[in-house]
Amino acid sequence: MEKQRVRLTVAYDGTNYHGWQLQDNGITIEEELNRCLSGLLGETIRVIGASRTDSGVHALGNVAVFDTESPMPAGKISYALNQRLPEDIRIQKSEAVSPDWHPRHCESRKTYEYRIYRAEFPMPVKRLYSYFTYNALDVGRMREAAAYLEGEHDFKSFCQTGSQAESTVRTIYTLWVEEQGQDLVIRVCGSGFLYNMVRIIAGTLMEVGQGKREPESMQDILKARDRASAGPTAPAHGLTLIRYEFFS
Amino acid sequence: MEKQRVRLTVAYDGTNYHGWQLQDNGITIEEELNRCLSGLLGETIRVIGASRTDSGVHALGNVAVFDTESPMPAGKISYALNQRLPEDIRIQKSEAVSPDWHPRHCESRKTYEYRIYRAEFPMPVKRLYSYFTYNALDVGRMREAAAYLEGEHDFKSFCQTGSQAESTVRTIYTLWVEEQGQDLVIRVCGSGFLYNMVRIIAGTLMEVGQGKREPESMQDILKARDRASAGPTAPAHGLTLIRYEFFS
Repeated sequence: MEKQRVRLTVAYDGTNYHGWQLQDNGITIEEELNRCLSGLLGETIRVIGASRTDSGVHALGNVAVFDTESPMPAGKISYALNQRLPEDIRIQKSEAVSPDWHPRHCESRKTYEYRIYRAEFPMPVKRLYSYFTYNALDVGRMREAAAYLEGEHDFKSFCQTGSQAESTVRTIYTLWVEEQGQDLVIRVCGSGFLYNMVRIIAGTLMEVGQGKREPESMQDILKARDRASAGPTAPAHGLTLIRYEFFS
Repeated sequence: MEKQRVRLTVAYDGTNYHGWQLQDNGITIEEELNRCLSGLLGETIRVIGASRTDSGVHALGNVAVFDTESPMPAGKISYALNQRLPEDIRIQKSEAVSPDWHPRHCESRKTYEYRIYRAEFPMPVKRLYSYFTYNALDVGRMREAAAYLEGEHDFKSFCQTGSQAESTVRTIYTLWVEEQGQDLVIRVCGSGFLYNMVRIIAGTLMEVGQGKREPESMQDILKARDRASAGPTAPAHGLTLIRYEFFS
């Protein structure tokens, strides 16, 4: 039978998962996709993910591909797969792609949002998808700091140590700080992100917002090429992978 | 010791609770408040709730009062109580009220939102706080229907049968249907609501939006004074009690 390569747009609530990537000590998104796809298509399926999100991180549109010998039309797989997946994972789209298309070997643009809920007390219905703080945050200062990070830079200081990335140069197209009522949303769009990069940017911008750092200090942090020069890694549950755009 | 009456503004994620009111077969919000307040204040506390929300319904601002002999300043109770409560219940405010103030014996205005997520497939991060539908909804028709329900009416048709309300006349000050991206929000503000009234209104307006009923049919439904004449009760998890305002 002829093989086809299928691309999935995958949304999930990361609360109950140990991240994307297969591992021994907890259930992962990749594992659930492999299990449900194999059951649906009657063959052993191994997906390849675009972004291996961390434990607790959410996604509206992560991407995965897999090869199958099944004659099921690619566009119908989303409907059938959603019947088998747990309710905190839902395929948003399934489509045929060329047999050599690979989500990590092609130019793409990724958008993440880091959401902060600002109030005196936490709000239960927001607790799973935003980071709560009672600290006052100066949005103007955060925007000023964010502007220093836009463009092509060596983001080594914003990369978790131990990462095996060959190059730590990345391009941030836009880094916006938006107020949505009591929520503050850090929205970043870039060519790619290093390990924990968005969460370290969020943690550093929050320190600027609290007055613990100056907006101009972003320049020194970039120059230092040292994780210790940046702020803390903001908690995972405030982060959501919004969208992938591919240019090939 | 002198008694004081304390009013709490209570927010909760209703997902894991069997509603507000004490019952034998599941944990309730009232039970958790009584347990944690009794532990904090060292005496047996029994709260009186303003709105006994159903299983699965959420709240940003339900209200409860209780009497205590504790000398703890009323305004500090929120902080101390939040340390003991599970993370899906959070006190937003605690304050002293007069000893005869009762949340169900005074004039008030309540605001509820019923949230509908419209898309081809469910979105996991929205699944707990909105009702998913892939049905197209005509917002113009829903707004036209909503307008018939504003004002003072006998809402018996929009009341779950078996309710013991003495009068089924209520006043809806505003009933708005708002689009927020892919969300459709039915926001209703009124003097009070009958059992399941907001969920029956939401279920009926969705049928109008789908073309199963005409907007003008709202008049006949009101006149019928019969639960069977209205649409289905929309699922609980789409409903959130937003706010209470008291006039005394």
